[in-house]
Amino acid sequence: MKIYGHNGKVLRVDLSNRAITEEELPEIMYRRYLGGGALSLYYLLKELKPSVDPLGPENMLIFAASAVTGTPALGFSRFTVAAKSPITGAFGEAEAGGWWGPELKFSGFDAIIIKGKANKPVYLWIHNGKAELREASHLWGQLARETQETIRKELGDEKIRIALIGPGGEKLVKFACILNELKHANGRTGLGAVMGAKNLKAIAVRGNKKMSLYDPERVREIVKRVLETYKENPGTLGEVGTARGVMPLNADGILPTRNFTSGSFEKAEDICGETMRDTILVGRGTCYACAVRCKREVKVDEPYKVDPIYGGPEYETIAALGSLCGIGDLKALALANQICGAYTIDTISTGTTIAFAMECFEKGIITKKDTGGIELKFGNVEAMLQMVEQIGKREGFGNLLAEGVKIAAEKIGKDAQEFAMHVKGLPLPLHEPRGKTGVGLGYALSPTGADHLEIPHDPFFESEAGLKGILPLGIIEPLSAYDLSSRKVRMFMYLQQLYNLFNSIGLCIFTANPFGPLSINNVVDYTNAVTGWDTSLWELMKVGERHSNMSRIFNLREGFTSKDDCLPDRFFQSLEGGTLKGKKIYFQEFQQAVKTYYQMMGWDENGFPLKGKLEELELEWAYGPRPS
Amino acid sequence: MKIYGHNGKVLRVDLSNRAITEEELPEIMYRRYLGGGALSLYYLLKELKPSVDPLGPENMLIFAASAVTGTPALGFSRFTVAAKSPITGAFGEAEAGGWWGPELKFSGFDAIIIKGKANKPVYLWIHNGKAELREASHLWGQLARETQETIRKELGDEKIRIALIGPGGEKLVKFACILNELKHANGRTGLGAVMGAKNLKAIAVRGNKKMSLYDPERVREIVKRVLETYKENPGTLGEVGTARGVMPLNADGILPTRNFTSGSFEKAEDICGETMRDTILVGRGTCYACAVRCKREVKVDEPYKVDPIYGGPEYETIAALGSLCGIGDLKALALANQICGAYTIDTISTGTTIAFAMECFEKGIITKKDTGGIELKFGNVEAMLQMVEQIGKREGFGNLLAEGVKIAAEKIGKDAQEFAMHVKGLPLPLHEPRGKTGVGLGYALSPTGADHLEIPHDPFFESEAGLKGILPLGIIEPLSAYDLSSRKVRMFMYLQQLYNLFNSIGLCIFTANPFGPLSINNVVDYTNAVTGWDTSLWELMKVGERHSNMSRIFNLREGFTSKDDCLPDRFFQSLEGGTLKGKKIYFQEFQQAVKTYYQMMGWDENGFPLKGKLEELELEWAYGPRPS
Repeated sequence: MKIYGHNGKVLRVDLSNRAITEEELPEIMYRRYLGGGALSLYYLLKELKPSVDPLGPENMLIFAASAVTGTPALGFSRFTVAAKSPITGAFGEAEAGGWWGPELKFSGFDAIIIKGKANKPVYLWIHNGKAELREASHLWGQLARETQETIRKELGDEKIRIALIGPGGEKLVKFACILNELKHANGRTGLGAVMGAKNLKAIAVRGNKKMSLYDPERVREIVKRVLETYKENPGTLGEVGTARGVMPLNADGILPTRNFTSGSFEKAEDICGETMRDTILVGRGTCYACAVRCKREVKVDEPYKVDPIYGGPEYETIAALGSLCGIGDLKALALANQICGAYTIDTISTGTTIAFAMECFEKGIITKKDTGGIELKFGNVEAMLQMVEQIGKREGFGNLLAEGVKIAAEKIGKDAQEFAMHVKGLPLPLHEPRGKTGVGLGYALSPTGADHLEIPHDPFFESEAGLKGILPLGIIEPLSAYDLSSRKVRMFMYLQQLYNLFNSIGLCIFTANPFGPLSINNVVDYTNAVTGWDTSLWELMKVGERHSNMSRIFNLREGFTSKDDCLPDRFFQSLEGGTLKGKKIYFQEFQQAVKTYYQMMGWDENGFPLKGKLEELELEWAYGPRPS
Repeated sequence: MKIYGHNGKVLRVDLSNRAITEEELPEIMYRRYLGGGALSLYYLLKELKPSVDPLGPENMLIFAASAVTGTPALGFSRFTVAAKSPITGAFGEAEAGGWWGPELKFSGFDAIIIKGKANKPVYLWIHNGKAELREASHLWGQLARETQETIRKELGDEKIRIALIGPGGEKLVKFACILNELKHANGRTGLGAVMGAKNLKAIAVRGNKKMSLYDPERVREIVKRVLETYKENPGTLGEVGTARGVMPLNADGILPTRNFTSGSFEKAEDICGETMRDTILVGRGTCYACAVRCKREVKVDEPYKVDPIYGGPEYETIAALGSLCGIGDLKALALANQICGAYTIDTISTGTTIAFAMECFEKGIITKKDTGGIELKFGNVEAMLQMVEQIGKREGFGNLLAEGVKIAAEKIGKDAQEFAMHVKGLPLPLHEPRGKTGVGLGYALSPTGADHLEIPHDPFFESEAGLKGILPLGIIEPLSAYDLSSRKVRMFMYLQQLYNLFNSIGLCIFTANPFGPLSINNVVDYTNAVTGWDTSLWELMKVGERHSNMSRIFNLREGFTSKDDCLPDRFFQSLEGGTLKGKKIYFQEFQQAVKTYYQMMGWDENGFPLKGKLEELELEWAYGPRPS
């Protein structure tokens, strides 16, 4: 049978014995799991034993594109990296855009499953259906940029796409990320550390295989229509970037500030996307086949040197290292972004962890004795920059912070723990749940911990606007961002499944409804035109539901319980500052919402998926004994 | 706001005080319930008190078309009648095709809600937005044909479409049906008796309002494409009719024969669709806008007179009054069909009830003394014809059988009960669950009792073929018709929701996939083109799920429990004859399947919908105290 849109091939690499094999993946697997997160979960549940050390050779590391990655429509550039996360001990997944995912497809494979640990540093080179492990001892210790340049040079091709780690990953910073093209990060859950622990410095891909399309004419038609839709209504994302959110969030009192004590920041305007556009922006980057060009390229000459090759800070980075640390210096944020890139550490976790330390310092729980003389106060630009570098190098006080807020707080002591803003160990991203209750549910119920790509993180979504085609928007009453009724739970659950679908098919939320030109029905049409399937949104949403159930089982196997579906205490207390001052989430109401979510999901009162629900999703194989 | 595809108006009639009012129905109601069964359930749950006498004035009777009825595509001609059923005491619904549903829309209304009871016979006349109750004493006692002719004559318009009852409905035969155009029946659950109990002889509709279309060009395009698809592959339904099933079912050993004792009938060929085509067929009828023309028109001159005006027997009629009664005389079946039409009694229930009596007679449980001298044996043509007429007239032994198999068996005595083939009181339709396990689940789990329009009733469906676009058919292993694993339960549950959707949007299963040219994605496209919505299959399937949950709650309120989700004992015993001789359903396995279904549905172990599931479906208003 001819296959369309994908290669039908997975590469398996065992680093311990340097064995590389190919595996055929039958069509049904693409139909049932699509790729990305759902496909990764399938392999993790089938092949990873519970309770292994995430940084030991037993952990698996999966890179997965999807059934449609590398085909012509905008938005489908993303791929997933997944493993057991070293920062949470739970399911870890992170997506990235750029060109790496499509290039993996062109190289002849749809996914890579890595096991074991190399006895010395290596990198993986995949080229037109062939794969080899190459020595990387000379690359070990190199920053991201040098690593990319060296590999491209020694392989003699400037167009090789490389997913790599810098020293942060090598040194097992618990929230190390993986970077491709030096700007696109599989940011969260510490997957760069898993790569480092395996002595795997990089994966370089290149190929000239084009994906077959089932109905090329229809594909062209859809691509054309989507592009026209975009041109008619381009919005501001391309022009201002993701940091366009800073000013409206600040005005709404939900720009996380000084470790989530306030929701408005007096220097917001200094760090917003519009200011970036008008000052340090020198170019706009993009991803494979995308017309939006939301990525930033910034250049700073003084007081620091910042090179556009590392792109520029996203909203999350600006809020994490900026408002959350009380810092209103855009050039410093550009530099911090570059350091994070060079060392491949997650900007979100880095910012949230430093903000935690700053609050501890301000409250006197830690002192200059702990920080090696650094005055680690909110707003101290130099202190922030030093800390970012120390984390990347695992030096000084940064070595403690490199463990993430949860472990750092445990080591500092009991008094520090109330300032550690994390769920399941994952440092919070930059969305204030007291002004967006769906975000609160997302933080508590995301299998990866508090994760901005597993949740409805924009106030716009809180009005259910993300669910066009799923709910009768424009007809029903708009939903309030403060609502925490069953209707909000439903909105969250539907959006979560939609996001899971996006994270499995490799689709960027900024190109899909409501931000982008791709409607939900476009996604269905396009998938059918590429693959020759007769799928529907109904079937595609089931992939999202499958994802939620598999990740739940992964975490239950690892010992997580419904007690872990919670929020930091701070959110049940009043916001101390900003236009939303006084707002809080009511604990009882929140707990009720979590229980309602379980029922909506077909899970029991302890959050265990019921056997019948798993059977409905053809996941009966994943049902196991319930931990006591 | 301009509305498309529908009138946005419901007519309310209180027969007790002859009050007629109009009610605006907001767009959201169409989006959430579409029409038909789901919309009817909404009103029944909101306005009908539990435990009322189904034949008392408190019962409601609802006629409902849908948001798209009366628009140009083939297949969408059907409408629902719903009430508390007098034969089951449970939710009662029945659909019919023809022209009545579209004409109701043209008359200015989308649905009619009838309450109370007229103090003497009336009929309802709706004409271009106006409605009036007219005296019908002169029509009382008239057969269906005379009733239609008289009303058309007195209103002076031959094109008036009339839904009516004959003497069977007037005399409260528990399985009386409602007929339109003398050939299209809202057949099951005894709704004709509800009409009779209300002294409502008929509803005549006429109008020239055309439905506005949101995107007329796209509608034309879809209609054209669907018609072309049909012409390319017309199948045999138009040529042979629904009775094309007789021979293959007989060969497979699943043609219900002699009250479900056997699955093959020695005279099958004499009563099959092909024989009908080659002998008594004189014309082919159809429904509004439909090119398939599956309806039969038969003429017999001797030994009986059968007029084509009553159409001709469907598969269900042929098997119920034919093989199930051991009768292989097609002309006699044509006559029986005509008598059932004239008296408006359900052919299925009539046949199953007579077959029950025949088995009782053969086993000596009843004798000629009971039957008034009739030799009520399997295969006795004259006896069958006499019984049909007696039931229609509620005369002689027929008066007992007019209560349906359940009550008749109770009255005859304990020995008779094992031969009473019903679920929840509804006599079985003509599908053998021992050779199609999904049918068994359908019988047990249909809210209306054993009902051929609530279940996957064709062996073709048992292979999941009905779920094209919902499951990855052609990729997964075909499912066996004898399977009763969780996969079969899932297939049943998905199909049930799809059928509920069809029964709410008024779509005929014979025009939709896999029998007809309409694919599931066509249904979505078409609905959007007509209404201007941006709905998806996901949202439409939720209407089906809503239907299942509302009907479940209806029945729970009436005192039904999980014990009623069962099959007659006979199916847990071996088939006595036919090519499938020896086949049975295993009781434990069947019970497990029912429990699995509950879990898949988000219901508790007693089959109560969980609060969270109802909240997900925006049915939280329907959640009430659980009966103890």
